[in-house]
Amino acid sequence: MRLKHDADLVQAITELARSKGIETGSFTAIGALKNARLGYYDQKNHEYLEIKIDAPCELASCTGNISLKDGEPFAHIHVVLADEAGNTKAGHLLEGIVFAAEVDLRQLTGPKFERKHDEVTGLSLWEVK
Amino acid sequence: MRLKHDADLVQAITELARSKGIETGSFTAIGALKNARLGYYDQKNHEYLEIKIDAPCELASCTGNISLKDGEPFAHIHVVLADEAGNTKAGHLLEGIVFAAEVDLRQLTGPKFERKHDEVTGLSLWEVK
Amino acid sequence: MRLKHDADLVQAITELARSKGIETGSFTAIGALKNARLGYYDQKNHEYLEIKIDAPCELASCTGNISLKDGEPFAHIHVVLADEAGNTKAGHLLEGIVFAAEVDLRQLTGPKFERKHDEVTGLSLWEVK
Repeated sequence: MRLKHDADLVQAITELARSKGIETGSFTAIGALKNARLGYYDQKNHEYLEIKIDAPCELASCTGNISLKDGEPFAHIHVVLADEAGNTKAGHLLEGIVFAAEVDLRQLTGPKFERKHDEVTGLSLWEVK
Repeated sequence: MRLKHDADLVQAITELARSKGIETGSFTAIGALKNARLGYYDQKNHEYLEIKIDAPCELASCTGNISLKDGEPFAHIHVVLADEAGNTKAGHLLEGIVFAAEVDLRQLTGPKFERKHDEVTGLSLWEVK
Repeated sequence: MRLKHDADLVQAITELARSKGIETGSFTAIGALKNARLGYYDQKNHEYLEIKIDAPCELASCTGNISLKDGEPFAHIHVVLADEAGNTKAGHLLEGIVFAAEVDLRQLTGPKFERKHDEVTGLSLWEVK
């Protein structure tokens, strides 16, 4: 799939999964973003720190999965972004405005995964439904 | 597939797709390159800027897809490269000389994508054939 | 699959492949690590240099494959890690202690690959079994 110019990558992939009825899936994407917000999870304090990327960048790597959270398809996405010198910023994708993006989304059959709160990490992690 | 030592990664994957008759596909690769040329797309001026990587590097990430362009299989590839200190350079792969590379290329069935000029971005983007 | 907190990513994926009977496979993963050891292969001297990552980091990208080495499933893994500022370190994963990790492991059918010593690179590379 090609995503729409100016869409948010996170919302667009979530919407794509929902429209195709994909509750468990895996994807990669490449392209370019106009700007982005990344997250870094503070493993001690159990909170996301935010990193703003205010410049156009290559989407050098984008890997993620689809699973259920509160009964709805939820996209978990990690990216590596590159600037005009090839220098990188990376992390958990909170938001990314699409310049152009090509996605390979694969539906996975078999057990469904549902995200539930995990005490040890403070994250919503997979349990087999 | 294992790619040949001293091959150009872009040409080798294009040739692999052609030889297997793959017109729509997706792939990942890992390995190491002897040197590379990366591209950063200038979203305002609609042109690729070139970044030269003149040293041996790990192919830390390599994601891409195969689609048709002018009726022929065309490989679109993004990479993250790492030097001996683990520092990275990333972007659109224009050329990469293989030291060693292992590729997982998957043929996609269903609609075919053909690259056509897109006015908004200046890029050749997918239209369903 | 979700990997166990405090497991080593390399061992956990190897064990996962062994337990599922996967001798040829491909995977991606995202999550976070507590710490890691990366490798950079010195293409001239044919040896891995080690890079220590002593801080918690996002597993921004993780791509790898499973093949046979000495008759057993062997995991070859490359990663990109990101710190709290989004800055990256990347390379061949020697060890990575899991904070949280979600893996998409795919079994590949068809020819099996077995790693054999390659004179040119000094690496164990694929030969079709």
